[in-house]
Amino acid sequence: MELSALIEQQVERDRRRGFPVDFASDSERLNQLMRDLVGLLGEVGEFANLLKKVGLAHSTPGYVAPLLSEVNAELREELADVAIYLFRLVTILDGDLERDILRKVGINDERYRDLER
Amino acid sequence: MELSALIEQQVERDRRRGFPVDFASDSERLNQLMRDLVGLLGEVGEFANLLKKVGLAHSTPGYVAPLLSEVNAELREELADVAIYLFRLVTILDGDLERDILRKVGINDERYRDLER
Amino acid sequence: MELSALIEQQVERDRRRGFPVDFASDSERLNQLMRDLVGLLGEVGEFANLLKKVGLAHSTPGYVAPLLSEVNAELREELADVAIYLFRLVTILDGDLERDILRKVGINDERYRDLER
Amino acid sequence: MELSALIEQQVERDRRRGFPVDFASDSERLNQLMRDLVGLLGEVGEFANLLKKVGLAHSTPGYVAPLLSEVNAELREELADVAIYLFRLVTILDGDLERDILRKVGINDERYRDLER
Repeated sequence: MELSALIEQQVERDRRRGFPVDFASDSERLNQLMRDLVGLLGEVGEFANLLKKVGLAHSTPGYVAPLLSEVNAELREELADVAIYLFRLVTILDGDLERDILRKVGINDERYRDLER
Repeated sequence: MELSALIEQQVERDRRRGFPVDFASDSERLNQLMRDLVGLLGEVGEFANLLKKVGLAHSTPGYVAPLLSEVNAELREELADVAIYLFRLVTILDGDLERDILRKVGINDERYRDLER
Repeated sequence: MELSALIEQQVERDRRRGFPVDFASDSERLNQLMRDLVGLLGEVGEFANLLKKVGLAHSTPGYVAPLLSEVNAELREELADVAIYLFRLVTILDGDLERDILRKVGINDERYRDLER
Repeated sequence: MELSALIEQQVERDRRRGFPVDFASDSERLNQLMRDLVGLLGEVGEFANLLKKVGLAHSTPGYVAPLLSEVNAELREELADVAIYLFRLVTILDGDLERDILRKVGINDERYRDLER
């Protein structure tokens, strides 16, 4: 599926549900970016918490925690949540995520040229 | 462009540059997830720093900072960086981001049904 | 209580429990910093999730969530968790948090002189 | 120095500089918590970026980056910044960080009893 189509279907849903994506002023836009950044942080934090627990089982004798394979599906669900917030943030900024990624890939192609092998 | 194609082109580049995406053990995989999560956090933090400065100009008299419109391109570049780390994390977990997003969209369709209007 | 005493009592406990605070090499130290940063991120994320929910109740008609006052104690518990990870990170870096804070306060005194009133 | 005294001197400065710490409503309080959480995230992100670079030098042949010892002072400065935002967040919540930490230490004493040795 096109990245742009994935984003569009999310934004349509957000509009219907009253999660703001359209703004009358930059002040409102800024407030919403803050709120969605906090939302993204929450999802990144859930991913971090799962990873931390798996890691403690490796490093701390006696600490009981799931294996990485046992939380794989849950970790991927958190990443999907992160992606959804990312789609919202890009939309609030009137950005085109595909174009912005391709531009950054080009910048990185220059930056990491010496690492190519 | 297909989301899966965007991810694939990133992973090919990472492989050529020596940024690990293939692992002999779950212990190595876990370490790399930690490292890439730290990388993602750095990019999210750069986005946060820009937003914070714009916000301080709104809330604190005398604080000099750029307008939201002036950092729009930079904010979007940070989001592209976040997306690239997200692609890496999904790949390390052998995930299919499109499928995981679509699954989560379905879950949210149930969860937010009462908000639809 | 002295900040240094609060940190010391935490480090003693971590030592007894096998949460690493002493290292044979900078490579091990780096790995532990990554792990504890991921731990701190998890706690910051829990704080963010609570705040997000409270905020959604303000911005989205029909979204049911607790009031800020109802999650006050929980939010403060998350901040205590963040503080404990901060103590660990400082210790792993052989830092003196009080001294580092006082130094930064001095830097900020210069930086924000024009805002004083 | 007492933790409470460190916090108090920061709050006094913030008041004089117009960084909000007193609020007429929970709605304003919530907005400020979001803003300061974003500020904290920016500082955590700077710490993460430094750590990431040091780590890449370990894991990626050819990647040029400073040693951990070379960024030690800078890492500690970022942690001081995190502490200052933590002090702000606690204050906005009318919390007593020392008391909240001691309470959490007590909870952890129960939770990790089995790890003691």
